[in-house]
This record gives sequence, C-alpha cells and structure tokens, in this order.
Amino acid sequence: MKALAFDVFGTVVDWRSSIIAELAAFGNTRGLQRDWPAFADAWRAGYAPAMDRVRRGELPWTRIDDLHRQILVSLLTEAGIEAGDDEVDHLNRAWHRLNPWPDAVAGLTRLKDRFVITTLSNGNLSLLTSMAKHAGLPWDCVISAELFRHYKPDPEAYLGCAELLDVAPGELTLVAAHPSDLRAAQAAGLGTAYVARPREHGPHGELHVVEPGEFDVVATDFLDLADQLGA
Amino acid sequence: MKALAFDVFGTVVDWRSSIIAELAAFGNTRGLQRDWPAFADAWRAGYAPAMDRVRRGELPWTRIDDLHRQILVSLLTEAGIEAGDDEVDHLNRAWHRLNPWPDAVAGLTRLKDRFVITTLSNGNLSLLTSMAKHAGLPWDCVISAELFRHYKPDPEAYLGCAELLDVAPGELTLVAAHPSDLRAAQAAGLGTAYVARPREHGPHGELHVVEPGEFDVVATDFLDLADQLGA
Repeated sequence: MKALAFDVFGTVVDWRSSIIAELAAFGNTRGLQRDWPAFADAWRAGYAPAMDRVRRGELPWTRIDDLHRQILVSLLTEAGIEAGDDEVDHLNRAWHRLNPWPDAVAGLTRLKDRFVITTLSNGNLSLLTSMAKHAGLPWDCVISAELFRHYKPDPEAYLGCAELLDVAPGELTLVAAHPSDLRAAQAAGLGTAYVARPREHGPHGELHVVEPGEFDVVATDFLDLADQLGA
Repeated sequence: MKALAFDVFGTVVDWRSSIIAELAAFGNTRGLQRDWPAFADAWRAGYAPAMDRVRRGELPWTRIDDLHRQILVSLLTEAGIEAGDDEVDHLNRAWHRLNPWPDAVAGLTRLKDRFVITTLSNGNLSLLTSMAKHAGLPWDCVISAELFRHYKPDPEAYLGCAELLDVAPGELTLVAAHPSDLRAAQAAGLGTAYVARPREHGPHGELHVVEPGEFDVVATDFLDLADQLGA
C-alpha cells in the first residue's frame, strides 16, 4: 500500500451539520424560518440522481458546483424563497466551507507521514481546494472525478486516480464511509478501508451494514485507521 | 488576482545542484568519476526537445518521468556507464527529490494565506506530489500539464489551469523564472510574475533579459513577491 485516496463528503467532512448551519444563518439574515435539516437533506438527496444523469450521458459533463446550484435553485423556489444570484452563489459555496469530523485533520496528518494522501471525490477540483484551505486538510494532492470526467462509481475514476499517482490499483486504498463506493473501488482492483461515520445523516440516520471481511480495513475513525496502518 | 500558479523546475526548486549531488552520489557508490555538472546540464537540455516532439504530435503523450528516463538511458550509454533497471529508476527519481530555493517554502507559506497556490508544471502529477512531500512545499493543489495532455507553452495548459481553479484567466497569475513561459501565459490572458533565479544554470549561467513593464510583477525571490503582493 503506497497511497490512500479519500472520499470526502461524509467521510472527511460533516456535510450535514455544516450545511444546516449555513442555511440557518442564511435564514436568520433574511428572517426566514424553515425546516433547515430537511432542506439540507433534500439538497444532498438531489446530488446522486443529478450525477447519475451525467453518468448515463443524459447531461454533458457538469461540475458538482453547478449540479448543487441547480438543485438549490429548485429547492428555494419550492420553499417560496426569493434570492439574488450573489446570495445563491454564496449559499451554494457552503459546500466549499464544510467542517471536518473532529478526528479528520489529526488522522490525515499522521497518515501523510507514511503514505501519499489524496482526495478522490466527485466534488470539483476548485471545491475540494477551497475546502482544504477552509478546513486545514493536509492533502498531498487534490484529485477529483472532474479530472477524468467520470463520476464515481465509474471505474475510470478509481483507475484514473491510480494512474495519476503512478501506482498499481492494488497499491492504492480507497478510504470511505460508504460501502457502495468501496465496492466499486474493490471491483476496479483497489484496496478498501471502511470508516464508520454513524452521524453522517444526523442522530437518527441509518447505519451501513458491512459484512465481516468484506473490506481490507474497518475503522471507527481516522485515528483508528492510522493506528491500524502503523502510521 | 485570486490564484497563483507556479512553474516548478528552476522557479521553486534548484534542479541543477540537486541533480549534480544525486549524480555525484551515484558515482561515488559506483567508483565512477565523470563531469557530473555537464551530465546534469545535458540531462536537462534533453527535456525541451523531447517535450516538443510530444507537442508536435511526433510522440504520443509521454510523462516527464518517462522522457527523463529515456534521456538518462542515452546519456549513461554515451558515458559508457552500465546500470540496472532499479538503479536507473532510482536515479531518474532524483527529479522527485529536488531541493527548493532557500526562500521558496517561507514565501509560499505567506502567499498561501492570501491566494490559492498551485503548481503549473510540465512535471507529471506523481512527480510534483512526491517533490512537494520531499521538499515540504505547501501547495493548495497540484496541477500538471499531464491533466491537459498539453505541455506548456501550449495555451491549453494555462487556460486549463484557470478552468480547474474556476477563475477567469485574468484572475490567475503565473509565477516563473522563465520569460518564455510568462509570455505564453500572458498571451493566454493570465497575469505574470517574473522571479529572478540567477543561479538556475549555475554560477556562470546567462541571465534572462526582461523588458521593463513586460510582466505585471518582477521580484527577486518569493519573499519579495509576497511583499509586493501584500501577503
């Protein structure tokens, strides 16, 4: 194992509480009251179907920033909220300002001493770069599905990442909180490390079911991952 | 100005003294004496013509690591030196282990507080990533000509960098010690910052001629650049 590629939304950063806080702050400045947790969940829920339309070729290549914005505009309209372009842009960039899980920066810093650490996210490169600056994420490099114009779980994303890092697929391990992402990485020949993020979908979210032995490593957080990998 | 893209070989790192030291160390372990400075200069001199063959389409896309290796193998043969594959690989990866100019890390660290800082180098992504780890270069992200399959000075490299960073070409400034690189960036609509590196080609290297007003900023090193940019 030479390199670790990290899924980002949910695995490294706590998108839900960050987005809820940004929506609530937006609501406060506008004197609006809405169910912001439900709004955040609907925003996130629109993301996979939008990417799938790109993956199936129904949409041309479109960045996550633009997909997020389209979903946001629909949700604002549905909620009867009018907002100017600049306001929508600022709110949309909330995805650039997500906060890391409490163990993320310390764990990454340890893992970086022993391995090359990169993002492998469907987020566009500028989003991931802004986020790293905001959150202090110490990536060695920033790799995005945008570079391959193939969203995960397309195999091109996993194999393209290994190729850019100049390692064999088996020398690269995907770290993710989502079994579906890990299964696609495994099918492409990558190693797999599952990290549980039980609060990704809030206090009442459903937990993922992981079969024993299904992934190479199963960890409770990034510090546990660093322990298990000797970093 | 939102982002700074840095040329790397010669601008950020002192390739010549690093490569000479690696060649001399190789020579010592093998009991070989050669003119290592001349060998280093010949290795570097082979690089532009090899890239130009790729740029003209005479060679398919080829990474700098592979171009460097082809040139190295020729030079070793010419010098009557036999070396095994592993030895050649190790020596070739000397380009991953280049040392920064003395002001580089401190200057980049200051500039990073105010701007997005990225590489924009013809070096492949894995080379630039290894080098950043070796030299402690605090990039926000690592962008390589490899991502566009167009070597600088092709405009696709400069414009592709701006697109990935999601900034207009005029919001991106190229920082380089080479007027030719800066002129191509300028023609593509980027801002330009010339940093003098009078010792890039050794104590007797020729200095570049820069016309007054030709570039947006002219600096003596990265600390001076940070001063001039208010970082």
